Amino acid sequence: MARATVRRRVVRLRGSETGVRPDALAAEEPLEIRLGGEPLTVTMRTPGHDFDLVAGFLVGEGVVHRTEQLAALRYCAGTDDEGVNSYNVVDATVRGDAAPLSGHRNLLTTSACGLCGRDTVEAVRTHSRWPVDRDALRVSPALLYALPERLRAAQRAFDSTGGLHAAGLFDADGRLLCAREDVGRHNAVDKVIGWALREGRLPLAGHVLLVSGRASFELTQKAALAGVPLLAAVSAPSSLAVDLAEELGLTLVGFLRGESANVYAGAERVAAG
Amino acid sequence: MARATVRRRVVRLRGSETGVRPDALAAEEPLEIRLGGEPLTVTMRTPGHDFDLVAGFLVGEGVVHRTEQLAALRYCAGTDDEGVNSYNVVDATVRGDAAPLSGHRNLLTTSACGLCGRDTVEAVRTHSRWPVDRDALRVSPALLYALPERLRAAQRAFDSTGGLHAAGLFDADGRLLCAREDVGRHNAVDKVIGWALREGRLPLAGHVLLVSGRASFELTQKAALAGVPLLAAVSAPSSLAVDLAEELGLTLVGFLRGESANVYAGAERVAAG
Repeated sequence: MARATVRRRVVRLRGSETGVRPDALAAEEPLEIRLGGEPLTVTMRTPGHDFDLVAGFLVGEGVVHRTEQLAALRYCAGTDDEGVNSYNVVDATVRGDAAPLSGHRNLLTTSACGLCGRDTVEAVRTHSRWPVDRDALRVSPALLYALPERLRAAQRAFDSTGGLHAAGLFDADGRLLCAREDVGRHNAVDKVIGWALREGRLPLAGHVLLVSGRASFELTQKAALAGVPLLAAVSAPSSLAVDLAEELGLTLVGFLRGESANVYAGAERVAAG
Repeated sequence: MARATVRRRVVRLRGSETGVRPDALAAEEPLEIRLGGEPLTVTMRTPGHDFDLVAGFLVGEGVVHRTEQLAALRYCAGTDDEGVNSYNVVDATVRGDAAPLSGHRNLLTTSACGLCGRDTVEAVRTHSRWPVDRDALRVSPALLYALPERLRAAQRAFDSTGGLHAAGLFDADGRLLCAREDVGRHNAVDKVIGWALREGRLPLAGHVLLVSGRASFELTQKAALAGVPLLAAVSAPSSLAVDLAEELGLTLVGFLRGESANVYAGAERVAAG
């Protein structure tokens, strides 16, 4: 278990040539997340850092926002066909003023009533425990430009499979604090934020979160609920991601590639250094 | 409504230069899917082809597999903050021998008991209504190589936003029958398969489904439940996608770029032409 890659035989086509060789694939397995013993959701993820994944998921849904609210994380006895624990079921126990929820319909992302984009943005705003600190972070374009290469350098599995999304957490000086990979891009971000929660680092004021793909509404939501003031993406943001960033005062950077980037919201945090 | 792109002001960083210009973003809005009036799930999607999206989603979950099982699709009165219908809630009514389901826990993807990858594969196998026809399709490498460019040519929104995933359905001669885009890659596939269901074209024996990104377990599941014998992806597959393709007899092609590709399962359908 907990292997990020799996080797398989593959038929390679190159022009009109055909060959057979071994290839490394990104591992994917289901993970059931339970809260206080009650099934909450199932996500398809790359095994490894599962407790971080569950902790980060609970932050992103507004269930916990401080380390001490997370009482325990443990593997339950889901079993494979040989009766061996599959390590694919994790139960989280929360305490104190953690916000209880159960069942898919209560997840923050799906609880907006009326269901227009504006309601969805509002639901995240009302669930955010950490105000985004408007003064805490200033970064230069040059600092931003340097981040994608640092994240790639930290990715061990990507080069061999090409199938993993990455997320990286940086401090205000551009130092990489935590990098995680997963077949699911939401999962990579959950693993980073869950790591930060378990390390007692929330809220992530003064930090930059970088994702290897696009910036969707849900990734922006996850950044917001962890108190991250700047979310950067190698690819494009969606309209609702930009709406949410503007509403909450987050800086949203997209198309961060080489010596260029687009700032879609919160440009005041990006200043020539 | 139903606009795939939205224009916004963006701060462009190019080296040490900064400028402001308008930019096109991929539109993202929540869509609540109801089945017989009961809320089933919420997905973040690009508005447009919503009925196809819902129909395809229901195929992928094993609820319907023939056109006549889908009795009706209609928008419900979800409203925005001005009381106007948001067109973000769709209710589907099924009939005949459609497989009823309700609530997230009953969705096919999350119903595997024991929750190891093998159980998940087995759950899809037992829900598949269309056997994959082992003899119906043979394609040459040259035909495969031509598909990505045909899909890109059909994408109207991609060039302007860079933020949309695409899925395309091709016949055995490589003719593009249907192309759909979405901020969510699952949604793009649902829109294509839903189109096919509503056109009375299921099972999609003798067809090729191409996706612009990676081939995950869930995309392979969607192909399988529509009876597609060959799924091709521009990027990498996951381990469980390959397991599922092997189990069901699907052909799975990855890294389809230029004059090269990898065949991860079902290589007998790819023959020099």
